[in-house]
Amino acid sequence: MGLPPADSVDNIVPADLNIPDNYVQHTLKTQKSRGPVTLNNLFSELNYLNCVILLVTPLLGLIGAFYTPLQLKTALFAIFYYYLTGLGITAGYHRLWAHRSYNASLPLQYFLCFLGAGAVEGSIKWWSRGHRAHHRYTDTDLDPYNAHKGFFYSHMGWMLIKPRRRPGVADVSDLSKNPVIKFQHRWYLPLILIMGFGVPTVIPWLLWGDAKGGYVYAGVLRLCFVHHSTFCVNSLAHWLGESPFDDKHTPRDHVITALATIGEGYHNFHHQFPMDYRNAIKWYQYDPTKWFIWSMQKLGLASHLKTFPDNEVRKGQLTMELKKLRQTQEKLAWPSDSNDLPVVSWESYQEQAKKRPLVLISGFIHDVATFINEHPGGAHLIVKFIGKDATTAFFGGVYDHSNAAHNLLAMKRVGVLHGGMPHGLDEKGIPPSQRLKIARY
Amino acid sequence: MGLPPADSVDNIVPADLNIPDNYVQHTLKTQKSRGPVTLNNLFSELNYLNCVILLVTPLLGLIGAFYTPLQLKTALFAIFYYYLTGLGITAGYHRLWAHRSYNASLPLQYFLCFLGAGAVEGSIKWWSRGHRAHHRYTDTDLDPYNAHKGFFYSHMGWMLIKPRRRPGVADVSDLSKNPVIKFQHRWYLPLILIMGFGVPTVIPWLLWGDAKGGYVYAGVLRLCFVHHSTFCVNSLAHWLGESPFDDKHTPRDHVITALATIGEGYHNFHHQFPMDYRNAIKWYQYDPTKWFIWSMQKLGLASHLKTFPDNEVRKGQLTMELKKLRQTQEKLAWPSDSNDLPVVSWESYQEQAKKRPLVLISGFIHDVATFINEHPGGAHLIVKFIGKDATTAFFGGVYDHSNAAHNLLAMKRVGVLHGGMPHGLDEKGIPPSQRLKIARY
Ligand code: HEM
Ligand code: HEM
Ligand SMILES: [Fe+2]
Ligand SMILES: [Fe+2]
Ligand SMILES: [Fe+2]
Ligand SMILES: [Fe+2]
Repeated sequence: MGLPPADSVDNIVPADLNIPDNYVQHTLKTQKSRGPVTLNNLFSELNYLNCVILLVTPLLGLIGAFYTPLQLKTALFAIFYYYLTGLGITAGYHRLWAHRSYNASLPLQYFLCFLGAGAVEGSIKWWSRGHRAHHRYTDTDLDPYNAHKGFFYSHMGWMLIKPRRRPGVADVSDLSKNPVIKFQHRWYLPLILIMGFGVPTVIPWLLWGDAKGGYVYAGVLRLCFVHHSTFCVNSLAHWLGESPFDDKHTPRDHVITALATIGEGYHNFHHQFPMDYRNAIKWYQYDPTKWFIWSMQKLGLASHLKTFPDNEVRKGQLTMELKKLRQTQEKLAWPSDSNDLPVVSWESYQEQAKKRPLVLISGFIHDVATFINEHPGGAHLIVKFIGKDATTAFFGGVYDHSNAAHNLLAMKRVGVLHGGMPHGLDEKGIPPSQRLKIARY
Repeated sequence: MGLPPADSVDNIVPADLNIPDNYVQHTLKTQKSRGPVTLNNLFSELNYLNCVILLVTPLLGLIGAFYTPLQLKTALFAIFYYYLTGLGITAGYHRLWAHRSYNASLPLQYFLCFLGAGAVEGSIKWWSRGHRAHHRYTDTDLDPYNAHKGFFYSHMGWMLIKPRRRPGVADVSDLSKNPVIKFQHRWYLPLILIMGFGVPTVIPWLLWGDAKGGYVYAGVLRLCFVHHSTFCVNSLAHWLGESPFDDKHTPRDHVITALATIGEGYHNFHHQFPMDYRNAIKWYQYDPTKWFIWSMQKLGLASHLKTFPDNEVRKGQLTMELKKLRQTQEKLAWPSDSNDLPVVSWESYQEQAKKRPLVLISGFIHDVATFINEHPGGAHLIVKFIGKDATTAFFGGVYDHSNAAHNLLAMKRVGVLHGGMPHGLDEKGIPPSQRLKIARY
């Protein structure tokens, strides 16, 4: 919210051009941090400007609302203006400038630059500088809104106090050259006053005579909503939901976050593929920011909408699904391998089968004592084969057993017949559940 | 619907005790079938008794409904009686007698035997005989309602004509000994008249004086609904839905089928685990038949509710999911293996890097021409490393690239540096998407 830190003003050469190979580790180890905030140092560590903006605005709004009746037209306009200024952040600050995920024509850039100012979240350059560091150093101390420091910290706590250390290096030289961004930087204060409070007061005043309602609802309270809506991208989106593309870091996908943030809730995807202009890849997922950008393209105001190669997106999903299934695979009980079973001669098999119900199927000897009376085909069909070879009958001669039956059978192995698989059915000695397996490279 | 075929009356010895090892193939090859039904032989091939029952009943019901106002009480009673007689089939005929998936006390057995008669679908023994053949020979010509013969055939067509061949052998000697089943067999005709039409007429007559409504709605029309509801288990359940447990045969799982069949719609599960008293394994899935059996157990009227070992159920699911993911895995493009790439000397790498943008990372040489300007970290960070080794920078020294970045990088391989992986980072030469793989045994 404050003014941009010194290091990112007017740097035309990339800030990270000569970054050393061990930058991350080295910086985390050697750079001094401001240390923890405690009750003792709280008052000297607060960022008072941000505290006022973030804490007084909602108070002001609530008091105003208490004394100002809400008109339907003003309410609808406030919602509309919430979406507009929200898009200034999501489609403008975030996807266009911080991530360069598409190109915008000059008129669209000015439009987004004005709307973004109306969200009062700092200049484009300051915001993008922090956001690029957030992506580069996600979940580390070089990430200005490090989610590991807790929900409240990543939501707004980080702005209420002085930054604990400089955000990690991130290049914004591309933004320093941009005339629209320079313009916004130069006129930032008037812009937030006009777009944050002027416009939302004047429009309801001129059109239906509700200046006070416009100021309170479309100005002040709308601003609180835009704030917390976009803050949710740093808090909620790093806590709630699934990780369908990668689980190395905290970002998550959830429709609730998407609804709260004009479509920025598919944040696991976004952190994996930050240069993609989409956050949601399925058409039925809620991503109005994507729809807006796409519409701008149709109107000829945006171009070069970037998407990550679908092949690689699917690979990420595949890896995550395999990871889950591998856990299942490891939790299940599997049959004994032929190497772990005693090798039994035909005579010994005959001998032992007189004492307990043993059945030979494709080279394995099975103890079916617990199953005979449960057998859906009837006990008699198994009893008949005690001490015999039931391979052909079991493999479809009498009944083509289901894969489940094959899997169950394999769990009852107690030995291997000496001489191996007499039927040359080797492939069949492998139960269906083991023909496909997740293996580590 | 007709009387049981001669071969299954009073056979106390299992019909399949001396079944030869090649029964299925042999029978399909040598046994004569009645041949196809054509317009020429239609009239001699019809099963007139069943045609009357199945085609005249709905007609009668519609005409009756036209002349009989429907009272609310009668309507509710008809629905109630639909569920009762339906349960006679699903909890009685199907899960108790055909599949022995639990034990029922004598009172419960008589209760189910009476209700089942009210569904007018043939005697327990005839029905179970056919159903066991359906499970043993699913989707073959020995399956009396072979789904491969089309939706209508498996729904009811098979009953309208004379059976094309005898259903495959299935043992019902356990049923032949059962006094309840013997009783039903002996009194079958009076039982269907009493339970199918008598009871649903008399109850509304005595309680609220609507004999005609009871006959038409709770008797005739309710019967049509029970018929088609249970027939759906042979038709819809073999057509609609997913195969989460095995896809060897036609049975499918779908909630719509479940709703239409009092819970018999998780038919893919059921064909894999026919001795399981459940069809739905999740608590939130619709399986009132399971709930009924479970309640009977709580009342002490049922016992020995069988379930298939969970370990094996999960194996089936795992196999099916792996099968699907393997298709994904095979459809995706994967990076070239080091064996398929040219081995390049350091000098040659330097030479070629002057002509096109080549970057060395963990022993592989990559052509990044198409990517430099797309790079979210900025072109300068890549340009800086052309003709150099970017391994440390890429692997977190400067930025800890996402798995997606690693996967994308591997797709750009054009050569291997002579001398192999100079960093001993061998594990890292494998992109994250290839660390877990579905392999065939
Ligand atoms: C010895 C180990 C055996 C095991 C673990 C076993 C397992 C099973 C299982 C789980 C079923 C349920 C249906 C299915 O999943 O396919 C089944 C059904 C059946 N089994 Fe077995 N079986 C064994 C041996 C045999 C043998 C030796 C025969 C024949 C000679 C046989 C004949 C049948 C028949 C005919 C059915 C069909 C029952 C029906 O659905 O009506 N089984 N068996
Ligand atoms: C040569 C092949 C390279 C490829 C294919 C590649 C790919 C990518 C991709 C896909 C991203 C997006 C974020 C992510 O997925 O993690 C990214 C970001 C980044 N890359 Fe690379 N990269 C390459 C080389 C390099 C090198 C050599 C460096 C450093 C010297 C580097 C530094 C960065 C930085 C700092 C970012 C963060 C951008 C941000 O989020 O603000 N990249 N890279
Ligand atoms: Fe984030
Ligand atoms: Fe982002
Ligand atoms: Fe079936
Ligand atoms: Fe069944």
